[in-house]
Order: sequence, then C-alpha cells, then structure tokens
Amino acid sequence: MAIKQVAIVGATHGNEITGYYLLQKWQQQPELIQRSSFNTRTLLANPKAVEINRRYVDQDLNRQFASHNLADETLGGYEQNRAKVINAELGPKGASKTDLVIDLHTTTSNMGPTLLMPQAGPFYNQLAAYLKLKMPSVTIFRDEDHKANEEHHLLATTGRYGVIVEVGPVPQAVLRQDIFEQSEELTLHILDFAQAYNTDSLPDLPKETEAYRFLESLKLPVNEQGERIGMVHKNIQDSDFKALNPGDPLFQLITGETIYYQGEKTVYTAFVNEAAYYDNNLATSLMEKVTITLD
Amino acid sequence: MAIKQVAIVGATHGNEITGYYLLQKWQQQPELIQRSSFNTRTLLANPKAVEINRRYVDQDLNRQFASHNLADETLGGYEQNRAKVINAELGPKGASKTDLVIDLHTTTSNMGPTLLMPQAGPFYNQLAAYLKLKMPSVTIFRDEDHKANEEHHLLATTGRYGVIVEVGPVPQAVLRQDIFEQSEELTLHILDFAQAYNTDSLPDLPKETEAYRFLESLKLPVNEQGERIGMVHKNIQDSDFKALNPGDPLFQLITGETIYYQGEKTVYTAFVNEAAYYDNNLATSLMEKVTITLD
Repeated sequence: MAIKQVAIVGATHGNEITGYYLLQKWQQQPELIQRSSFNTRTLLANPKAVEINRRYVDQDLNRQFASHNLADETLGGYEQNRAKVINAELGPKGASKTDLVIDLHTTTSNMGPTLLMPQAGPFYNQLAAYLKLKMPSVTIFRDEDHKANEEHHLLATTGRYGVIVEVGPVPQAVLRQDIFEQSEELTLHILDFAQAYNTDSLPDLPKETEAYRFLESLKLPVNEQGERIGMVHKNIQDSDFKALNPGDPLFQLITGETIYYQGEKTVYTAFVNEAAYYDNNLATSLMEKVTITLD
Repeated sequence: MAIKQVAIVGATHGNEITGYYLLQKWQQQPELIQRSSFNTRTLLANPKAVEINRRYVDQDLNRQFASHNLADETLGGYEQNRAKVINAELGPKGASKTDLVIDLHTTTSNMGPTLLMPQAGPFYNQLAAYLKLKMPSVTIFRDEDHKANEEHHLLATTGRYGVIVEVGPVPQAVLRQDIFEQSEELTLHILDFAQAYNTDSLPDLPKETEAYRFLESLKLPVNEQGERIGMVHKNIQDSDFKALNPGDPLFQLITGETIYYQGEKTVYTAFVNEAAYYDNNLATSLMEKVTITLD
C-alpha cells in the first residue's frame, strides 16, 4: 500500500530546537520536502514548550500516545490534551490518515544520526537497509518489541508507519549547524525512500543491515534519600553504540569510587548521560546488536 | 595582605550542576579544600534554581552584583534578593570579609578549563602565571577593563579578590566526569596558589603568560521581528580561543546562506554558541590575545 500522506513533526520536545528551525526552513523552502508520489505536511508539536524553552510544560509529550491514554479524557495536563489534538490531526492511531510520521528529535548523547523505529515489519526493514546504503553514518535503533503498538507511547506511533529522527550530541536549547544538517539529510533520505517505495524504484538493498535493539535502562547510583551520588563513568561517556562488557567501569561516585558493570554478557549503550533522562535518574539504555534481514 | 578567608560558591546558575556536586563532594571530604594558612567555606548560591533545574528563577543571579543594584531595595525578584543575602554573607562588596571568592560555572561552549578574572592586579597576574605552570590546559580569560569593579555585576566581585572557574563543554543539567574532574583540579590549584602566596613559597613563575581579554559580544542574525534566522557557522563552532579573521565564515542562515565576519582585524572567540546566551541572541564573545607580564 503506497505512502500517500507524510507528516514531519518538530519540537515535540520544546528545547530540542533543531526540529523547530528545520520546520522554519521548510516553510520557506517547501519544495525540499515535496515528492511527486505523496503529500508532505509539517506540524509544530509543542509550541508552548518552545516558547518557555523547556522539554515540556506539564508532561513529556512523547510519552502520551498509548491508546488508553489517548482515550482517557480525565488526563488534563497541557501535553495530555495536546496529544489528543495531534492524534486527531495526524491519526487516529490504529486507523491513521497519515501513512508516515517523521518526528524530529535531538539528544545530548553522542549518538550521531540515529533512526529510531518503534514498530517492526518489512517496510521498516527496507527503510533501514536503504538508509544505511545512502547515509552509512546512520545508526538503526529498534524499539518495538517490548510492547504492542497500541500501548507504545511515542508520538510517531500515530501514523500507519512512524519513525524518530534522533541526532546528537547537542545541548538542550542549542542549534548546531552539524546536527541541523545531519537531521535534514536523514529526513530527506526518508522522503526519498518513500518516493522510491511508491514508485517501485528502490535500489538494490543490502540483504543484511546492522541495528541495535533496546533491552533496558540502567539507573544512576542514588542514596537512601533518592539523591544522585554518582555519574556516568568516562569509560562510557560519548561511547554510545559501543560495547559494555561485564566488569567494565560504569559509574563514578562523586567521592571517587568506581562502580563496574555487573551484567552477564556484552551489551551496547545508547542515550548515555542524556540530560532529559536525569528526571528519572536514567544513566544509559542497554541495547543488543541485531541484524535486519531482507527476504 | 594574606588570604585569610576563602569561599567556594556553587550553583550560581541552577542548571550548571557540576558545582553543586563538587560542593557535595567537599562536604563529605572537607580536608580536600582546607589549607593551613586560611579558612575555606562553601556556599550553595541558588538552591531554588537547582531545585527547578534552571539557570535562574527570576533573573540571572550572576548579573546582580553591581553596587547600585545591591543598594536598591526596590528590586524584588528572587535572585535580586538572593544577591543581597550573598553580599551580606560573603562581602560586603568593597569592604569584604572574604579575601577570595571562587565561583564555579560550566559552559556548553568548548572552552576547556578556563579561569575568568573580573579584576586586574598583581595578585591576579601571579595566579594566572601559577595556573598555566601547574595546569597548562587552563585558559586565562580577562574581563576587567570595561567597567569599574563596583559596577561589575558578577558574584565573584563580592570578594576582595574573586575568580570564576568556567569549564566546558557540557550541556546544561548534565554532570560529566571529565568536566567535574577539570573543575576540581582547577579549583584545588587556586587553593594551592593561595597557600603558597600566604607562605611566601610560590615557585618560580613564568614572566609572560598568554591570556585573552574580552572585547565585545556578537549577536546572532535575526529578522525584523527579532526572531533568530541563523546559527553559528561550523567554522567557529567548538573553536573557542581560536582566531577569527576578517572574511571568515561566521553564521549560517537556516535557508543556507553563509555570513562572513566583517571585522577589521583578527580576534579570538569564546562562549561560542553558549546555550544560556540565546536569551539575548548572543552568538560569541570576541577576545584579543594579550600577555600578562610579571615584574
């Protein structure tokens, strides 16, 4: 089934301003995101959070799209309402008028250009293979297997297909030219993929594509009062998508002691020391390396 | 005149959390900041801003210490009051009970460990020479000549002497081990200097020390509505304390056009693309290279 309607969403998090400025650019130069076989629209997801230069006003907007939350009218926060408006506009989730949602994010972690895929399937597998072919610096991040799509809370799941463009490192509330350009390049490759997909003109795609699949999050060390008493060790700082082996340095306590990784097998890190995750004391995501295979 | 009382100040900006955690460390290990010839105390400058994880509540605390503002009781914001409390506690400015104030800051800019000196004089010259000797990665940043000390608005000017420890790059609201360690090392060298200064045991200091002196700030490009329409060019991103020559790329408009530096002589950048300075649309500081000479 062809891609007929694409939505590019920016500033789902108000202090990830790269997406905001990409939308500004494409408003002035709309031809950049148009393709002959589908319509492309843009959506500024959280204008009030942009205004106050914060991730969100009341709740994280990108955690509000589980179907049962979208159906719950008692949830009255700014983002809880905004999610329903966006779902009506782009979705509704499960029966969406939008074939592909591209949600633009940045991270303070050293993840480079990353494509986060919250669902599985042949469309996504082809997209991943295409992107690694066209932009080898892209990392494919799979985050679909731990829950059914209707329970997935990400904005991108309002589309029939949905992906997150996640690029870093860039501090919150900062616009960097390199991150801006990588975000644009990755987005335009996704549009080019949809065009080739629609017109049956995909290039020969690699049969195997390397990807990382989310396993779990690791928490920072805290004391009995729940206060953080340590930080990510410099061994893993900036080492997103690198191996973390049992016994490797993991945390450094402020008093100087080193804490070592106690897992039983080698895993890979992502979202290492991401600023936005301090709220929940998350230190890093742990991933496994997987291979995406085309039939 | 000997240094008898030293104050180390952290979290003057609530989202520069490195200083907050250094204070936590030294509360647990106070011997690290004690020296035999003087007393050292610590002060958490802006606890309410730490709590909300923002730079400030109402106003930038580190702009509230000009003498006429400290004397103005009609200024009723949180930081405007807090400045008067801190001035009473550490100062009063101009007749201070604190001989040396060390104020701990971080920046999103790629400045490395930097010592910012808001006043001039032989004490500062010796300190600068000592630090370059003990920690060659330190950059000396002079910011004293554009106004009299009583009109200087920085917290550090509440002391008889005062300096800012400014280390980056680190995103706001993030604790990085490397930045934490550099900040601690630089602070401990300053304490060691004061000890050697008091006990007449300074090592042989270099007669000439390289430094940078603040000239002016450059603004980001904006449209007629005052909205930002461009960003720092990647030519100067991360290039703090590097030369900017007439005709060099300076800004990149979101539409793709490059803006070049129009100055008449070579200058040096600092605080390039600092997140906190977007409020005032500041792109970078411009500095001149100077030499500090010991008699």
